[in-house]
Amino acid sequence: MPIRADTSMVERQLKSIGQELPPSKPPVANYLGCKQSGDLLYVSGQIGLVRGAVGSDVTVAEGQLCARQAVLQMLRTVKDQISDLDQIASVEKLLGFVRSADDFTEQPKVIDGASDLLIAVFGEAGRHSRTATGAPQLPFGASVQLEMTLRLRPE
Amino acid sequence: MPIRADTSMVERQLKSIGQELPPSKPPVANYLGCKQSGDLLYVSGQIGLVRGAVGSDVTVAEGQLCARQAVLQMLRTVKDQISDLDQIASVEKLLGFVRSADDFTEQPKVIDGASDLLIAVFGEAGRHSRTATGAPQLPFGASVQLEMTLRLRPE
Amino acid sequence: MPIRADTSMVERQLKSIGQELPPSKPPVANYLGCKQSGDLLYVSGQIGLVRGAVGSDVTVAEGQLCARQAVLQMLRTVKDQISDLDQIASVEKLLGFVRSADDFTEQPKVIDGASDLLIAVFGEAGRHSRTATGAPQLPFGASVQLEMTLRLRPE
Repeated sequence: MPIRADTSMVERQLKSIGQELPPSKPPVANYLGCKQSGDLLYVSGQIGLVRGAVGSDVTVAEGQLCARQAVLQMLRTVKDQISDLDQIASVEKLLGFVRSADDFTEQPKVIDGASDLLIAVFGEAGRHSRTATGAPQLPFGASVQLEMTLRLRPE
Repeated sequence: MPIRADTSMVERQLKSIGQELPPSKPPVANYLGCKQSGDLLYVSGQIGLVRGAVGSDVTVAEGQLCARQAVLQMLRTVKDQISDLDQIASVEKLLGFVRSADDFTEQPKVIDGASDLLIAVFGEAGRHSRTATGAPQLPFGASVQLEMTLRLRPE
Repeated sequence: MPIRADTSMVERQLKSIGQELPPSKPPVANYLGCKQSGDLLYVSGQIGLVRGAVGSDVTVAEGQLCARQAVLQMLRTVKDQISDLDQIASVEKLLGFVRSADDFTEQPKVIDGASDLLIAVFGEAGRHSRTATGAPQLPFGASVQLEMTLRLRPE
């Protein structure tokens, strides 16, 4: 099967690990899905589909799934803006909020779901600085919310 | 009435929508209200005047007011540092913490108060990437805390 | 006692105020301790050793100690990556999460522990933009978690 020219290496790599970009989410408010600032691309906060506090309502594994969903939603948003995901040079920074049960302290393990996926897709360039922290509540009751800074290739 | 040369377009725009910069807040600790880093200006976290958890102590509308107050306080801080708010080229990134009642999940709606104001003042250049998240408690019990990254015009 | 050429001014300054870098922490997951992005260095979230919610389990002073511990751990991580801490030109931005008792609203006072140490070590170049916010829970139950952006000297 010939490789379609309109598919990025990033999307082929996603497919090879059984993942794909979700549908676009229409903007829900007066802000951008991402904003380019010089060579940097600031990606707005995105949540995954899983709902509930990790450690009580949902398990760590479900939280990791939510983190992966949030990464895929961010990549969809980025594709909608820059068209070609192969313009991404590297992942610089990831900030992850985990909706946490009172005594839940394994936020890093949950956000590993996102980090592992980014590295599976982008390889060494996907290795990033990261903060995984706790939140009492998140938009729509989501289990995980992520925010990301990317570097784009020089034009 | 002639336009005073010492008033920025940003401040005239604020006035036209019925807003004005609050008084300067004296620094309360060993950090800066904002720090310039190349063309970027990192603006320190600022709170609004409204106090209480959104969804229990205060309403979404009061939370939005608090978000607007925090934006105005940030712009005051920026003016105190760079003198002329028209040096702001664009708003790159906004991080908003909403002090949330246990079951409150409309953080984005609250932070819309800030985003809408920024776009009313700066137009298209005010459109930004954004994360709106939940916090259990904030400095001085405020309802909203914001942090912002701006791009300045090349000198 | 002659100054050892392999010791940075930053480390001598730390020593003069009775502080020293802790041992390296082996990476616990699939991310970097810090990532260089142009002249910026994004330092991943680090916690201090103190555990518990500030305002109930531990005092403000203990929270400040935790903030200092987190700064030292970040500097150790940076040294492990860039070898020479004197390559740091300035501290741009600090984001501090304070695990907070329900009614605790003095997050800024806690993060002062970090800001004061950074300025004691780096002088004026250590003055930074800052956000000090509340969290319900943090990795390993820590009292404070910090994330930092540094500017490096041009090579």
